[in-house]
Order: sequence, then structure tokens, then C-alpha cells
Amino acid sequence: MIDRAFIDALASKEPTPGGGGASAYTAALASALASMVGNLTIGKKKYAAVEAEMCAGLDRLAALRERLLGLIEEDALAFAPLAATYGMPKDTPVEQELREAAMQKALIGAIEVPLEIMRQCRCVIEQTDLMASKGSRLALSDAGVAAVFAKAALLGASLNIFINTASLTDASLADQYNSEANDIIREGSEMADRVFDSVMSQIR
Amino acid sequence: MIDRAFIDALASKEPTPGGGGASAYTAALASALASMVGNLTIGKKKYAAVEAEMCAGLDRLAALRERLLGLIEEDALAFAPLAATYGMPKDTPVEQELREAAMQKALIGAIEVPLEIMRQCRCVIEQTDLMASKGSRLALSDAGVAAVFAKAALLGASLNIFINTASLTDASLADQYNSEANDIIREGSEMADRVFDSVMSQIR
Repeated sequence: MIDRAFIDALASKEPTPGGGGASAYTAALASALASMVGNLTIGKKKYAAVEAEMCAGLDRLAALRERLLGLIEEDALAFAPLAATYGMPKDTPVEQELREAAMQKALIGAIEVPLEIMRQCRCVIEQTDLMASKGSRLALSDAGVAAVFAKAALLGASLNIFINTASLTDASLADQYNSEANDIIREGSEMADRVFDSVMSQIR
Repeated sequence: MIDRAFIDALASKEPTPGGGGASAYTAALASALASMVGNLTIGKKKYAAVEAEMCAGLDRLAALRERLLGLIEEDALAFAPLAATYGMPKDTPVEQELREAAMQKALIGAIEVPLEIMRQCRCVIEQTDLMASKGSRLALSDAGVAAVFAKAALLGASLNIFINTASLTDASLADQYNSEANDIIREGSEMADRVFDSVMSQIR
């Protein structure tokens, strides 16, 4: 049942999959754990009053999972043009200019994919919050694990944004990306920490 | 390349794999990312001085990864006897006593596996520290992602310890387990935060 291919590919010296793809994957694991907490309520008399809410949350989590798994491939595809610019000639001023322009264009793709991963992570945390508060008590600890994983995925993806915005020459665009990333880190981390701390206080 | 089987199994209402197995898996992802940082130095003149250290770290990370992937199965095997006790009869005092004794025995197994996952997570963080400081600068952000993932795995596994020590009747044994878990959380989190913050400050 264990996916050795993805783990082996991560461990290799090939640049992708790397931290961006692994972050999308870890957010997908978080989404799956949150789904488990919801799935344990379906058809149970004790949870009849929240069944519609649980079903909606489960649909949302499944859609987030699909999107996140797709973003692993998108992350690799966005890195390829950036990697290609490293090998471009830079002997003449014209070559340097062409290389720089290609690099600036490729950087944007390599920023926007992890930013999208971060947005999806925040949505996973919102649904995890729902599952931790109204999902099955039997799997409360799994909701806590989902929260801490989704936060880690969000922070992991942010590194791939900051490393690339640092090379953007358009300072205003860099600020805009950094600002959105910082907002998601702040809001997402607060929400995830609240869910995790609440779970911890209920189980100890 | 993506492992849908593990993710689908996590999302299902079956109790395993759950947060414990997912924590072991996430720590294995962290170990793989740390290995990538080391693998990018091998055979490179720039890193010749640290090649022996990198090779030793890579061997250690590969061994940790194997152990962690094995612990996913061990976690499921340790949960089965605990789940079985929930279904034992409890109508007479003798039945209640038998059920309680079986549960206390099963709890120990369900605590020791996530505790072992936590110990392995701490080792992954130690090796990630090495890779972040002496591994390839090209993959510095991946070392940061590895650190934040290994910390999340450690915190995730700890929930499965605390939820079970809360049901142990042997208070001294419960204290012993909780104390080791708290020590690993403190030491491991400090080390992981230091690596992550160092990476973040170098890339921004």
C-alpha cells in the first residue's frame, strides 16, 4: 500500500518532485485524515444532525485532495522552464538580456504554483476545523494530525515562494506575492494551531 | 507516481492507517527530502570535503526511511488488539475484569509504536540539520521543508501516545511514556524550528 515511487523520486537528486510537490502531497494526506473523521459519522444516529454538513465537508475535502495531487505535477512542470534558463548562454549583453527575461517569466510560474498550494492548504485547514469540532469523537486525534500536517504543508510551500520572489526584479510584484503568502501563513497557522491545541486539550 | 492507495485508505472510515501511520509516512517524506539535499553534493568538487559526512548521513536517512515505512504496518498491527477489546463482553464483573486487562495490555502496544515513530522523527531532524548546514545550497529550501515535515510528524505521532496514556490505569507507566514524548517534542521541535528559521533567513 506504501508509495515507494514518490518517496524514492523525492530522495533522488532530480529537482522535482521536491519541497513544493511534497508540500502538496502532505496537504493531501491532511485532507485524507480530515475525511476519515467525517466518514466515521456517516449513517450514525449520533451524528444525524450534522450529516448534511459532514457530507458537504467530505465533498470539499475530496475536491481539495484532487487539486493538491494535480499540483504536484504542475509544480514539476513550472520548475522545468526555470531550470532551463540556468543553462542559457550569458556571454554577450544580448544573451544576458534574453536569459534574464526568460528567467523572470519562469520565476512567476514557479511562484504561482506553490502559492496555489498554500491557498489549498488554507482550505484544508478550514475543513479540518469543521471535522475537529463536529466530526467523529472516535477520530479526534486524526483531526489534530490533519491540522498539524496542513500547517506544515503551508509552511513548506511558502519556502518555494520566498526563494523565487527573492530573484524577481519587479519589486512590486514580489511584494504582492510575499504579502499573500504571509497572510496565508498567519491566518492558516493560527487556525491550525487552534485546532491542534483544542484536540490536544481534549485527549490528554 | 502518486500513491492513491495510501491516501484513499487514510480517508476511509477504517481506523488504520490513521494519524499514526500518516505521521510515519510524513517523516519518511521528510527523510527523502533531506536525502535529496545530500544527494546533490555527491561527486561535486565543491562538496568534496564533506562527501564522507554526506554519505554517512544519506545511509542513516535511508535506514530511518525504511524503519518509518515499516512502522506504518506496525502501527496498524498494534491497533488491532486494542480495537478488539472494545467488542469484548462486559456484562459480568469477571468479563469486565478480563476486558480491562486485555485493554491495558493492548494500550501499551498502541503507545509504543507511535513513541518509536517519534524517536525516528527526532533522528530525521538531526540528519536534516546536517543536510541544511553542509548539504547542497541548491536544495536549501528542501531541507527547510524536511524540517517542518519531521516536526509535524513528531507532533502528529504524539497525539496517538497521549490519547492512549490517558486510558492507562498504571499512572507511573503513563507518566514515563508522557515524559519521553514531551522530551522528544521539546528537543525535536527546537531543533526543527532552528533549521527551518535558518533556511528561511537564508532564502528571503
